[in-house]
Amino acid sequence: VTTRALSSTQRSTPRRGTNRARFDRADLHAVLDAGLVCHLALTMPDGPIVVPTTYGRDGDTLYVHGSTGAASLRAGASGVPVCVAVTLLDGVVYGRSVFHNSVNYRSAIVHATATAVLDDATKRHALRVLVEHVAPGSWDYARPPTAKELAATAVLAVDLAEASVKVRTGGPGDEPDDIADFPGWAGSLPLQRFWGQARDADDLRTQVAVPDHVRNRVSQPVSPVAR
Amino acid sequence: VTTRALSSTQRSTPRRGTNRARFDRADLHAVLDAGLVCHLALTMPDGPIVVPTTYGRDGDTLYVHGSTGAASLRAGASGVPVCVAVTLLDGVVYGRSVFHNSVNYRSAIVHATATAVLDDATKRHALRVLVEHVAPGSWDYARPPTAKELAATAVLAVDLAEASVKVRTGGPGDEPDDIADFPGWAGSLPLQRFWGQARDADDLRTQVAVPDHVRNRVSQPVSPVAR
Repeated sequence: VTTRALSSTQRSTPRRGTNRARFDRADLHAVLDAGLVCHLALTMPDGPIVVPTTYGRDGDTLYVHGSTGAASLRAGASGVPVCVAVTLLDGVVYGRSVFHNSVNYRSAIVHATATAVLDDATKRHALRVLVEHVAPGSWDYARPPTAKELAATAVLAVDLAEASVKVRTGGPGDEPDDIADFPGWAGSLPLQRFWGQARDADDLRTQVAVPDHVRNRVSQPVSPVAR
Repeated sequence: VTTRALSSTQRSTPRRGTNRARFDRADLHAVLDAGLVCHLALTMPDGPIVVPTTYGRDGDTLYVHGSTGAASLRAGASGVPVCVAVTLLDGVVYGRSVFHNSVNYRSAIVHATATAVLDDATKRHALRVLVEHVAPGSWDYARPPTAKELAATAVLAVDLAEASVKVRTGGPGDEPDDIADFPGWAGSLPLQRFWGQARDADDLRTQVAVPDHVRNRVSQPVSPVAR
C-alpha cells in the first residue's frame, strides 16, 4: 500500500462535499479494486460519449479493452483526454427531509490522456490484468489468446496520476431543526451484492465440475464495504 | 408500455454486438427503471468529465440533480451535449478461451442536450421523481423542500429521444473448436443485489419504527434481471 497523495490539479480537487473526499492513493486503489465496471468518457466530434466497460489495474495504470472496431476505443487510442469513473452504490440514505435524502457510495474519477497499448507483450499483460480483475483464476484456466485474437483486441492504458476519490457512509446529515422536530424515522438501507450459483454453459459437452476459482466465489459478497 | 422505436441516429445505432441490441423504447425504460445511478458525461474546456449521480425518469425525460455550485451541473445547464449511461452488471461469463470471457449486463446510453429545469413547479416535480426513484415512499414521508432548498438545487432534464440499449445474458459465445476440444468448465456466475437491514440514524432522538416504505425493501432483490 502506497500513501502517495492523489493529484491536486483543480479539476481533480473536490470542491463540494469535501468531508467525503479521500486523498490517499490507497483509497483510489481500494475503490478501483472493489469495482468491476468503469465508465469511460471521451469527446467525439458530435459531443461527449460515455462507455461502460470492464477494466483492470496494475499499479498506477488502469487498462480497458475492447474490439479494435469500436469507435470509442479508436478515438481513445489517439491520445485524447479521457475521464474514467468507477462507482459503487452502497446504500440509500433516508433523511428527515427529502433534501437530505442521499446515497452511500464509493467513487473514483480519473482524468488522463489514454494511450494505446500496441506491443504484444504489454497487451498480453494488460489482458491478463483485465481478465484476472473480473474473473480471478481464469487466465491460467482458459485457453490463452491467439495472435489473431490479440490483434482483434484494442487495449488502452490510463495513467492514475490525476484522480479524485469520494466515499460516503453512514446516516443522513439532517438539519438540526429536523433532528429535533421530525417525528418519523431516518436512517439508511445498505445495498449488498453477492455472487449467485454458477451456471453451466448450455453447450458444455460433458459433465465438468465447476472449478475452484469459480466455485469459491459462489455466495460470496461482491465489492463489500470494508469494515 | 410504449413500443415507439428508439432513435436510429448513427451514434446511437449499435454497430458492434448487434445481437445484444434492443430497439424498443420499453427496453430503454426497463433499464433506466432498474438502475439507481447514472454516469453523466459532458465536455469541459479541458476535456471530458463523467459524473456519477442518481436520477429519475418521467416518461421520456430523465432528471438529474445536484448542487447549484457543482461545475458539471452548471456546464450541463447551459445547453451543451451530454451523454448519460445506466449500466447494470448482472454477472461474469467464463469462456473456454479468455478471449470469450465476458460479462452479462444491461446498458442504456442516451445522447441529448441537457436543459436546466428553472421553474419551481417543474423542479419540485422533478425532485419528486428523483426521490421516488431511489427511495420510493420518501417524498410523502419526509419534510418537503423549502424554497431555499429548492433554490440551492440544480435540476437538469435529459430527453430520451436518442438512446441505445444493449442487454447480454447467458453463457459464453465460444469458438466451435473450443466447444469441441476444451476439457474444462465454462458458464456464468450471476451477480445479485439485495437490500440489507435498515439502520437507524445515530441521531434518532426517540425509538421510531422503520416505516413500511423502507421495511418492505429489506432483503428484497435490487434491480433483478427480469425472467
